[in-house]
Amino acid sequence: KEKDIGTFSKALYRCCSFFFSGLLIRWQTSAPRVRTLSSSNSFSQNIPSGLWKLGRLNHVAIAVPDLEKAQSLYKDVLGAQVSETVALPEHGVYTVFVELGNTKLELLHPLGDRSPIASFLQKNKTGGMHHICIEVDDIKAAMTELKKKKIRILSEEPKIGAHGKPVIFLHPKDCHGVLVELEQA
Amino acid sequence: KEKDIGTFSKALYRCCSFFFSGLLIRWQTSAPRVRTLSSSNSFSQNIPSGLWKLGRLNHVAIAVPDLEKAQSLYKDVLGAQVSETVALPEHGVYTVFVELGNTKLELLHPLGDRSPIASFLQKNKTGGMHHICIEVDDIKAAMTELKKKKIRILSEEPKIGAHGKPVIFLHPKDCHGVLVELEQA
Repeated sequence: KEKDIGTFSKALYRCCSFFFSGLLIRWQTSAPRVRTLSSSNSFSQNIPSGLWKLGRLNHVAIAVPDLEKAQSLYKDVLGAQVSETVALPEHGVYTVFVELGNTKLELLHPLGDRSPIASFLQKNKTGGMHHICIEVDDIKAAMTELKKKKIRILSEEPKIGAHGKPVIFLHPKDCHGVLVELEQA
Repeated sequence: KEKDIGTFSKALYRCCSFFFSGLLIRWQTSAPRVRTLSSSNSFSQNIPSGLWKLGRLNHVAIAVPDLEKAQSLYKDVLGAQVSETVALPEHGVYTVFVELGNTKLELLHPLGDRSPIASFLQKNKTGGMHHICIEVDDIKAAMTELKKKKIRILSEEPKIGAHGKPVIFLHPKDCHGVLVELEQA
């Protein structure tokens, strides 16, 4: 019977070793992912004092004069995953989403008389890049911080954007000619 | 002694249950990620006949008149990870990489007399979005396909881009006003 206990002890030991070595492998395989984010020495980062954090690029918006042709370029010529046309009357745009795996393009076309992209297309007849949208984890904190730092925001309060989340737009003249949208992640 | 064996059996059973329930949790937490990639029903995709495939958005390039100020906006105001300035004389640009997690912004400033972005900055004094770069898995196959489909390419052969990989640029007039760079992944 003592021999039996010995066998059980060994089995238990092996089982635990297997379990913990499994944990170790998980830790080892997941660790480099963490490391690539934090140990790239050529990069430097200042965490803003307000403790909000800039996240991923949500999308690049492209205004186009002909939505069907643009849809066809990305779908039939470039072979991307492309959505159907979505009308967003409250935003004054028709939109088509082009899925690129890590992020998406949003093709925009004016809807209605007061579309926010109508004047852009008057200046850029063939179309063009309209804005970039970056996610933030706390849009209210971001607003407070940006106001302090003299970056003009195009609305007093966040608006509900095309994805149903609060968004703000930063003045292009304060962002080196780029219209930057910040979206609550 | 039989009681001891009973205790060991139970401990072994618990240890194994814990291990396998851990596996189950891992499977459950990782499964939805796979599902979101394959089940987006509102998207449609045409695989181009040439069998090359459009990949992720590598970067959005932004031309800026003052690289230090732009660097400071993304680092000190927006709190992004920002690289040092990198001179790429063979491409006629200074560049700063802004890391956004899923992709990056590349801030460009002219280097030398024949910089490809000098005329862009003359037209856009405050700066602006210059091009988007999308990865492809076979740039030669992409070129053949695009030529067939009457999309103009700005060079006869791929050039070696800023990341040391073959790149081509598509004519903005054939891409709805957007300068599109394709980079061999």
